[in-house]
Amino acid sequence: MIKIAIVGATGYTGAELLRLLSSHPEADVQIITSRAEAGLPVADLYPNLRGHVDLVFTEPDETALAACDVVFFATPHTVAMQSVPGLMQRGVRVIDLSADFRLKDTDAWADWYHTPHTCPEYAAEAVYGLPELNREAIATAQLVAVAGCYPTAIQLGFYPLLKAGLIDTKQLIADAKSGTSGAGRKAAIGTLLTESAENMKAYAVSGHRHLPEIRQTLNQMAGSDVSLTFIPHLTPMIRGIHATLYSRLLKSADLQTLFEQHYADEPFVDVMPAGAMPETRTVRGANTCRLAVHQPQGDDTVVVLSVIDNLVKGASGQAIQCMNIMFGLPEFYGLQTVPALP
Amino acid sequence: MIKIAIVGATGYTGAELLRLLSSHPEADVQIITSRAEAGLPVADLYPNLRGHVDLVFTEPDETALAACDVVFFATPHTVAMQSVPGLMQRGVRVIDLSADFRLKDTDAWADWYHTPHTCPEYAAEAVYGLPELNREAIATAQLVAVAGCYPTAIQLGFYPLLKAGLIDTKQLIADAKSGTSGAGRKAAIGTLLTESAENMKAYAVSGHRHLPEIRQTLNQMAGSDVSLTFIPHLTPMIRGIHATLYSRLLKSADLQTLFEQHYADEPFVDVMPAGAMPETRTVRGANTCRLAVHQPQGDDTVVVLSVIDNLVKGASGQAIQCMNIMFGLPEFYGLQTVPALP
Amino acid sequence: MIKIAIVGATGYTGAELLRLLSSHPEADVQIITSRAEAGLPVADLYPNLRGHVDLVFTEPDETALAACDVVFFATPHTVAMQSVPGLMQRGVRVIDLSADFRLKDTDAWADWYHTPHTCPEYAAEAVYGLPELNREAIATAQLVAVAGCYPTAIQLGFYPLLKAGLIDTKQLIADAKSGTSGAGRKAAIGTLLTESAENMKAYAVSGHRHLPEIRQTLNQMAGSDVSLTFIPHLTPMIRGIHATLYSRLLKSADLQTLFEQHYADEPFVDVMPAGAMPETRTVRGANTCRLAVHQPQGDDTVVVLSVIDNLVKGASGQAIQCMNIMFGLPEFYGLQTVPALP
Amino acid sequence: MIKIAIVGATGYTGAELLRLLSSHPEADVQIITSRAEAGLPVADLYPNLRGHVDLVFTEPDETALAACDVVFFATPHTVAMQSVPGLMQRGVRVIDLSADFRLKDTDAWADWYHTPHTCPEYAAEAVYGLPELNREAIATAQLVAVAGCYPTAIQLGFYPLLKAGLIDTKQLIADAKSGTSGAGRKAAIGTLLTESAENMKAYAVSGHRHLPEIRQTLNQMAGSDVSLTFIPHLTPMIRGIHATLYSRLLKSADLQTLFEQHYADEPFVDVMPAGAMPETRTVRGANTCRLAVHQPQGDDTVVVLSVIDNLVKGASGQAIQCMNIMFGLPEFYGLQTVPALP
Repeated sequence: MIKIAIVGATGYTGAELLRLLSSHPEADVQIITSRAEAGLPVADLYPNLRGHVDLVFTEPDETALAACDVVFFATPHTVAMQSVPGLMQRGVRVIDLSADFRLKDTDAWADWYHTPHTCPEYAAEAVYGLPELNREAIATAQLVAVAGCYPTAIQLGFYPLLKAGLIDTKQLIADAKSGTSGAGRKAAIGTLLTESAENMKAYAVSGHRHLPEIRQTLNQMAGSDVSLTFIPHLTPMIRGIHATLYSRLLKSADLQTLFEQHYADEPFVDVMPAGAMPETRTVRGANTCRLAVHQPQGDDTVVVLSVIDNLVKGASGQAIQCMNIMFGLPEFYGLQTVPALP
Repeated sequence: MIKIAIVGATGYTGAELLRLLSSHPEADVQIITSRAEAGLPVADLYPNLRGHVDLVFTEPDETALAACDVVFFATPHTVAMQSVPGLMQRGVRVIDLSADFRLKDTDAWADWYHTPHTCPEYAAEAVYGLPELNREAIATAQLVAVAGCYPTAIQLGFYPLLKAGLIDTKQLIADAKSGTSGAGRKAAIGTLLTESAENMKAYAVSGHRHLPEIRQTLNQMAGSDVSLTFIPHLTPMIRGIHATLYSRLLKSADLQTLFEQHYADEPFVDVMPAGAMPETRTVRGANTCRLAVHQPQGDDTVVVLSVIDNLVKGASGQAIQCMNIMFGLPEFYGLQTVPALP
Repeated sequence: MIKIAIVGATGYTGAELLRLLSSHPEADVQIITSRAEAGLPVADLYPNLRGHVDLVFTEPDETALAACDVVFFATPHTVAMQSVPGLMQRGVRVIDLSADFRLKDTDAWADWYHTPHTCPEYAAEAVYGLPELNREAIATAQLVAVAGCYPTAIQLGFYPLLKAGLIDTKQLIADAKSGTSGAGRKAAIGTLLTESAENMKAYAVSGHRHLPEIRQTLNQMAGSDVSLTFIPHLTPMIRGIHATLYSRLLKSADLQTLFEQHYADEPFVDVMPAGAMPETRTVRGANTCRLAVHQPQGDDTVVVLSVIDNLVKGASGQAIQCMNIMFGLPEFYGLQTVPALP
Repeated sequence: MIKIAIVGATGYTGAELLRLLSSHPEADVQIITSRAEAGLPVADLYPNLRGHVDLVFTEPDETALAACDVVFFATPHTVAMQSVPGLMQRGVRVIDLSADFRLKDTDAWADWYHTPHTCPEYAAEAVYGLPELNREAIATAQLVAVAGCYPTAIQLGFYPLLKAGLIDTKQLIADAKSGTSGAGRKAAIGTLLTESAENMKAYAVSGHRHLPEIRQTLNQMAGSDVSLTFIPHLTPMIRGIHATLYSRLLKSADLQTLFEQHYADEPFVDVMPAGAMPETRTVRGANTCRLAVHQPQGDDTVVVLSVIDNLVKGASGQAIQCMNIMFGLPEFYGLQTVPALP
């Protein structure tokens, strides 16, 4: 059994780690921390976990954390940054769901997050937690920076096209629609039901924090610098990201076969049949990314449709997939939720 | 392994049987029937099942069904009625999710459903599929009539009070709120998103078809004829029933202890702590009924709050729980979904 | 033209006052105050008002307010209490949408709101702003305490029955379902879309702050003390209250005629035809309360269904109706919104 | 007063015509037709209209229709086509909300709608009902083909850029998100709340019927043939279209000033301030199109955000705006709804 701690388990990604790990045959969650809720049973905050998880929140304590095999950080940015060096030096493996270690360029990180990066050397060492791209490096990593939600949906959609060199990398567009759980469990006006139900809007048009992360990965996939316009939208639903990706073909190709072959061995990427249009609800609660590739309307524009559950393949599920790779376990452990429909 | 057939698997309760049975260690679903969709892979209709269920709908065939150990009917009323006698005579066990065999009074059934009941003798033999009431009879039944969704939420809420003889049985009120999945997967105007989102309404105020079923069971629980006013409401959500039950105390009692003791051994009834207010989302996808009992506002009115997922504890999950009892299996097999929240 | 000020216009009831008054032929809104947003054009906060209202929030100033004919308070409780005495002494008329002056028993008020009541003499003088009950007193009032949202829906539903002495006043039940806008425009976790969509729950079961207000009015209507159990529920929609009212008939009566005659002259109460089931969406944005009375299921239980838009007939619309009465204007001025459906 | 008939008034655009015309000072709706509901008061089908509209559906009758000044067709395609020639010959003016007369190329129409076009000469004569483009021609038209919902949002967004010749017309992308009311009031599975709530999906990726209409207008605006990729998405809300438009700048320009000047005199187009992100809820029920133009992320990609209420500026409101132009009335008559928020 793997001894596990979760730092910051009161948020949605923390709760989702608990839900998924409760059915993981090798996971032994020993510690869940929260400064604000120390002493509270998690099932009081998340009654869905009643009867499944009987842990109590505790104050974070480095010594206790260091006794675990792996520590997940499900925290706002800058929290992991403060604790990771100490834990790493004690030999603990760390899986960070926050943005702290995703960007190699920590100056850019500081610009986007309006605060200095306090341990650039760990950012350099961290492995970007997107198994479809970095499986081997994840296996041996001590620190994994799990890919963000928008980045996962967008990067998996563009990957086969970029790797094959089929598209104009200077004209990439990602029009993404997200449910409001992406904003996390925090008191706010903009994501009240009264403000976000029966409504659709774009936001962060001038530049979303996920933009440099996406560009970094697409550059790596393409082998050169790409130009990307990324427009996120807030959608009146709880979970799900639907990314609609546009690019221009440089030469003709059998795109369906390309995608199917590219992801043939991936357990959590489902290339749908030609003509399909994936729906976010079909991946709700699951670690699956469903993709469909189209060349519609007789044009040289390729349209890729990519859907994930932002809290699972976009966060906690992907983190567990990384853990399974790091510990040599079957990747599907803890990740067998069949989405409920309707 | 139990050989299983599902008749009418294109509807929501059929799909939910498939979702739950896909993780059941002793279930081998061999046949799913649909006249309308024969030849279609179920994963084309329910893409959430891609990678989990690879069955294809077939025309119903009595000989093939008779080779199974158990046949589930997830059909509109009157369908099971036509096939059950033949299957029973061939020795197959039947679990009917429809209303065909729930009422012992088949004349009343004919009145409520506006069509004659064609096999009253089977209605007499059928065991009412509410494990918390009829576990022993279910174990040996050949034909189980699974309790309806509203009835399950309401009956489990009133049961401890009625059995203890604590309330005035002539003044029972059940104000129930249901998501729209209770209306099933059928083309209709009233349950379009445009008609049922951002809206709350009562319906069937003069008498809902579940009323005689609820009364029959409450009468049995009370040992005498009860008077019940049951008002269902359509709520703008997909899944969930919230029943708010009102009755008048005849004498004072420790209601919290009563409920906790009554359901102490029930794996799928969660009596919440004093003061709790259960939420439908905490049981989404799960076979759990959560209950809270209140005596608010210094009055002799008892208020019971009861929530279920109408498609699980109110239908397919309960059907599988019955199957597990019938075949001597642990009751939780196939029923371990941890609800995802949010 | 009536010179109008709105104190606390950043909240939903303030914005709704502005929406409705923008089409009122005798309303001249001169001042909208907000400490937090002073200097901001209201249309920046509420872009729906772009092109219709070009006012700018200002700091509250008693002298400026005193130059108006009427001041609306659309504020949290305790705010009006501090300013009303000064304004009253300067001869201004006040319409308070908050709870500050609704209860005659200011000791009870202090208990429910956990703070002392600072001007009981004004609470005594205030007229309760429910036109169907108090039209004449409203006409000459200097201070009107507009009825709350739940109270309006519930009181209008019980009124004909209580006035006619037809029901057992010791067994009243109000099961009410509200959209989340009743919680106002404030940062909170419980009313995030992620927390309140796809969910139904009861809340404040032990006692909601509207309970003493409702009891006070029902007592007045009945001419004696009533017993009421009031259970509010949070419903996944933005606007609307659906109150389902249960009581026991003491003698038989033609309830449909009773209701129709009782409200025959009321411009904003719509008694629906026998058998109807009103929907909240049919009053969205309008000052209408739709009622239907049922005696279902052959029983002596009377069920009244009552729907309002909590922000209009339950707050801002009713406040404007009161203003029209106070200033001798046609009651429908500013209140002619036809609900949009769907 | 203008004598008005509405053919096919049971659908959402018919009901919306009635809602808006009920506050139009020169509109006298005399006839509403429906074969299916003849004899039924419209307020029984649309209780929101109780007290505002007391018309009864009648069978369509050409002689009666011909006695009106103008006939609106709020019907599925092919219905107007059958009746318009007769009415035109009797001198009646016709405003068609359906697709029958929008395409000049009636062979293309026949391909997209899978049925022959029966009166191409009227398609040639019809004026395309987009006032911002065709105001003068509308004024004298006898037959107006009101612009569709997606086309309105997309065309108004691209218009200033195309007219100014600023963008590469061979690389236009329109990613559009629509509420489900665009599918109309008809029994269907795909737009049930159970199927479309908590979900986001693209549809008609290979080609939506609005595509040729949009291309026809964009070609006219650009003065040459454009290439457009149009991907519509179904969004879990009732009303609203959010179009996110992407194109590539050929030369730099002050886009904000361009848009403001282009629409300076348009009463129903609101160019929002630089940096704004319009929300669909801010135009709910109103005839307004709100636009924002961005050149984000330091790139030569222009992003235009365009929101409308699909049933108002995308259908019935625009039809009334056309009528006002045809009859020399102020354009705002009947179109002064202030959106309610939240």
